[in-house]
Amino acid sequence: MNYILKDENAIYYECGYSSDNSIFLKLGSHRYFITDSRYTLEAKELVKNTEVVTAQDIILKANKILSKVKIKKIFFDPKEWNIFSYNKLTSNLKINFKEKPDFSHYKRVIKSEDEIKLLSKAVNLGEKAFNTLAKDINKNGFGEDEYKLTYRAKSILSHFGKYSLSFDPIVAINENASKPHALPTDSRLVKNNLLLVDAGLKYKRYCSDRTRTVSADKNFEFKLEQSFKTKKMQKIYDTVLKAHDNAISKARSGMKAKEIDALTRDIITKAGYGKYFIHSTGHGVGLDIHEMPYISSKSNMTIEDGMVYTIEPGIYIPNEFGIRIEDMVVMTNGKVKVL
Amino acid sequence: MNYILKDENAIYYECGYSSDNSIFLKLGSHRYFITDSRYTLEAKELVKNTEVVTAQDIILKANKILSKVKIKKIFFDPKEWNIFSYNKLTSNLKINFKEKPDFSHYKRVIKSEDEIKLLSKAVNLGEKAFNTLAKDINKNGFGEDEYKLTYRAKSILSHFGKYSLSFDPIVAINENASKPHALPTDSRLVKNNLLLVDAGLKYKRYCSDRTRTVSADKNFEFKLEQSFKTKKMQKIYDTVLKAHDNAISKARSGMKAKEIDALTRDIITKAGYGKYFIHSTGHGVGLDIHEMPYISSKSNMTIEDGMVYTIEPGIYIPNEFGIRIEDMVVMTNGKVKVL
Repeated sequence: MNYILKDENAIYYECGYSSDNSIFLKLGSHRYFITDSRYTLEAKELVKNTEVVTAQDIILKANKILSKVKIKKIFFDPKEWNIFSYNKLTSNLKINFKEKPDFSHYKRVIKSEDEIKLLSKAVNLGEKAFNTLAKDINKNGFGEDEYKLTYRAKSILSHFGKYSLSFDPIVAINENASKPHALPTDSRLVKNNLLLVDAGLKYKRYCSDRTRTVSADKNFEFKLEQSFKTKKMQKIYDTVLKAHDNAISKARSGMKAKEIDALTRDIITKAGYGKYFIHSTGHGVGLDIHEMPYISSKSNMTIEDGMVYTIEPGIYIPNEFGIRIEDMVVMTNGKVKVL
Repeated sequence: MNYILKDENAIYYECGYSSDNSIFLKLGSHRYFITDSRYTLEAKELVKNTEVVTAQDIILKANKILSKVKIKKIFFDPKEWNIFSYNKLTSNLKINFKEKPDFSHYKRVIKSEDEIKLLSKAVNLGEKAFNTLAKDINKNGFGEDEYKLTYRAKSILSHFGKYSLSFDPIVAINENASKPHALPTDSRLVKNNLLLVDAGLKYKRYCSDRTRTVSADKNFEFKLEQSFKTKKMQKIYDTVLKAHDNAISKARSGMKAKEIDALTRDIITKAGYGKYFIHSTGHGVGLDIHEMPYISSKSNMTIEDGMVYTIEPGIYIPNEFGIRIEDMVVMTNGKVKVL
């Protein structure tokens, strides 16, 4: 099968290296890695079983290579190419460009043992960073606003610049936590506030992702047992935790993604908070922070051993508070193993 | 003129607000801002003279709006739309979608007085951060590797999380500085090393960009006068500085971009280093860190009052060292003013 890739992680998966300006081309059994001169040296060292080609304009170069080969058909992901680049790539070619949306994501949905080890290591580093962050906030964070607290999360999660982050961390207090994608505000942390932290880091390009919601009392920790100051918060926290635990104990390989989504959603709905659970139960994690499988009420994808995804139910009471608990899991021997 | 925009900065420029999931649509005199429910409240507060429309799938929503209006032609930027999204947007419409590459960048090339104030403020904050960074490195940075030093640059440029960065800062020692886009390595800073720092921050979404190359001797500062330990380094530094100063003193409104490029390139070429100046003299800066005008040897764009761009000549001796000096300038009353 002939195909062409442009996404950085998609290319990394094929040949063990990529840069922010590269194209991967597989024509019959020949593989090309096209990049510009800034990356040639590194590419030649690190790319596996692939010819490295240097060009100032990598899309024109791909076009030129394609103009010289005798193939009829090539697959590409229409999400990877903007109209401008695609027009340049396909100009004057008589090849049939066939759309394959999410081509690389489908290939990557089952993780290898090596990938699971890397993801596991990323999760482990992330977990330790949450513990360090709790100590740091207990010592220095009370009275600080969400910008400063987010900065603390970034510093500690990245191990002070050693690791990249999977995404910009979310650190949200009380009502700001009622937005699933909260941006920082100048709201300041006070004892007994509700505090939600959603953060992850990358280990050798593989992402981690974790959320904890805590009652920021004296010497709080990012653990699953929490005591909140109001009955309402406690009831909602316990509901989210029950939903989280239920999916972890009952999800099985062979189920459809929507059945796993129902394992959290049904508990939240029965408790009367269904309309406040405004997102899916989870998403796959790998080289990308969001990839397949999507654990949503609409997905018919069959969950299999080797798939890695998040379980992250949440309840969001507008203008009051939000609670989300998130862990990354892998399917092994038919069951869930928390990473 | 009817047009549709998807880029976050392009949309911000039109209506004073945008999010990472929005579409701006101008149909006749009516303007739509389409986003999802996470951003509705903020959008309604901040968007100017534009109807806010909320939708789960913003592209389908745009398609629906377009299916109900009687227009023949609409402009779009083919760099803003991937094939997948474009197909969804245009599905079943009888409207002629006309390509306008860099549509928003052309509109934004002359900055207003208000924009110049914001850019000026960003540059000013960036300059102060360079001064703070020099003190910090003098005190704590010797013996640290480029990862740690980059972390220091990120912390100080962002004012510990208060501002976003224009891009990931480059902090490169000796031979690593010979790569214009150096990534951090575990090389450690030692007294009298050559140290290159390229960094900027965003003030109210407007970017700053600055590069200094210094001899990291005792109590070094990121100033233009520098004394290097070898004659070769000093000669090359002086050549780059002369090229930088020449463009600042001689660039005039009415010149073509390539003539301004020549103001730095000719000096470097005459000194015998032409083949080591491997990039353009500069690029426009605004809401995007790279926008028009591009100050390259190939650009025939006429430079006018109100344009803001970088002047950043550099000489890169492979495996030895690289030197670049960069300032942001605005054209005012026909001449260059350094921001």
